[in-house]
Amino acid sequence: MNDFLELCKARQSCRGFSEQPVEHDKLARCVEAGRLTHSGCNAQPWSFVVVESQNMVSQIASCGQQLKQNSWLGTAKAFIIVLEEHAILSPTISCFIDSQYFAKGDIGAATAYICLEAAAQGLGTCIIGIYDRKKICELLNIPAEKQFGSVIALGYPSNALIREKKRKAFEDIVRFV
Amino acid sequence: MNDFLELCKARQSCRGFSEQPVEHDKLARCVEAGRLTHSGCNAQPWSFVVVESQNMVSQIASCGQQLKQNSWLGTAKAFIIVLEEHAILSPTISCFIDSQYFAKGDIGAATAYICLEAAAQGLGTCIIGIYDRKKICELLNIPAEKQFGSVIALGYPSNALIREKKRKAFEDIVRFV
Repeated sequence: MNDFLELCKARQSCRGFSEQPVEHDKLARCVEAGRLTHSGCNAQPWSFVVVESQNMVSQIASCGQQLKQNSWLGTAKAFIIVLEEHAILSPTISCFIDSQYFAKGDIGAATAYICLEAAAQGLGTCIIGIYDRKKICELLNIPAEKQFGSVIALGYPSNALIREKKRKAFEDIVRFV
Repeated sequence: MNDFLELCKARQSCRGFSEQPVEHDKLARCVEAGRLTHSGCNAQPWSFVVVESQNMVSQIASCGQQLKQNSWLGTAKAFIIVLEEHAILSPTISCFIDSQYFAKGDIGAATAYICLEAAAQGLGTCIIGIYDRKKICELLNIPAEKQFGSVIALGYPSNALIREKKRKAFEDIVRFV
């Protein structure tokens, strides 16, 4: 595979989804990518809830709409919620660091894998940063004390245009030694 | 691109590199993938130090060899160090959360992008969890207070075999609603 950078460019935050439903198998492939992700000591500190029944999708969408600019969330066709699970590190490592030391980074990696696999299948994704965590726990029978990793909205993009990415300049953030 | 899952399977922790040097341009493509990574509020809370001069590579390798089982690090041909930088979040979000709230996950995502781009180019990678941070800072003129995101060893794998991944079973960690 030589075009991974093309996939990186194609994956972008999608804030508006078409009416087209998302196939179950495509969502399953997304979480399969999440499952395969690397993690510190291979601890795999995650589990995934895939929300695809449209009634529940609407209710989860409403949990992410406290911010006015998130009204587009009502067009999402599915959600994948990544939960943080207890990490069991190798004995050699766990004498140096706390069990969850790598977990946030590992979950960031799994979230990236999920979004990239979605893009590879033509799906749009947006990672939601602000949401009513307590309400989502109630709706999905998630224990109230569970740490959330990420909440990802999915669907087919209503606009297929790939925008140019706004990023800091390469020379400003990379140093070769 | 339909074979992203194949790339996920091909990317694995590599703990033994061949004598073949790594091309500068390939390393540049890896950090370009890191630069393109998504982040909360597009804050891009990272910078990258690419270590490719072989004298410095040896010195950095020695900083990761406190653990006996990491002696293979001496075969690494390059390192990419991802540093955590201050994140400027959007005003709407920053009234809810701390500036670095998303940073660990964002850096986990950028590390994943780097490792995947390396794999796409035939390079092996291993993310090092334990190292002498203070010594690395001295060697690379990194301010002592800087938070490290990740330290990635790179090179051409001495063994091209793709191992079967050991992961928790799909049905044990995925729930569809």
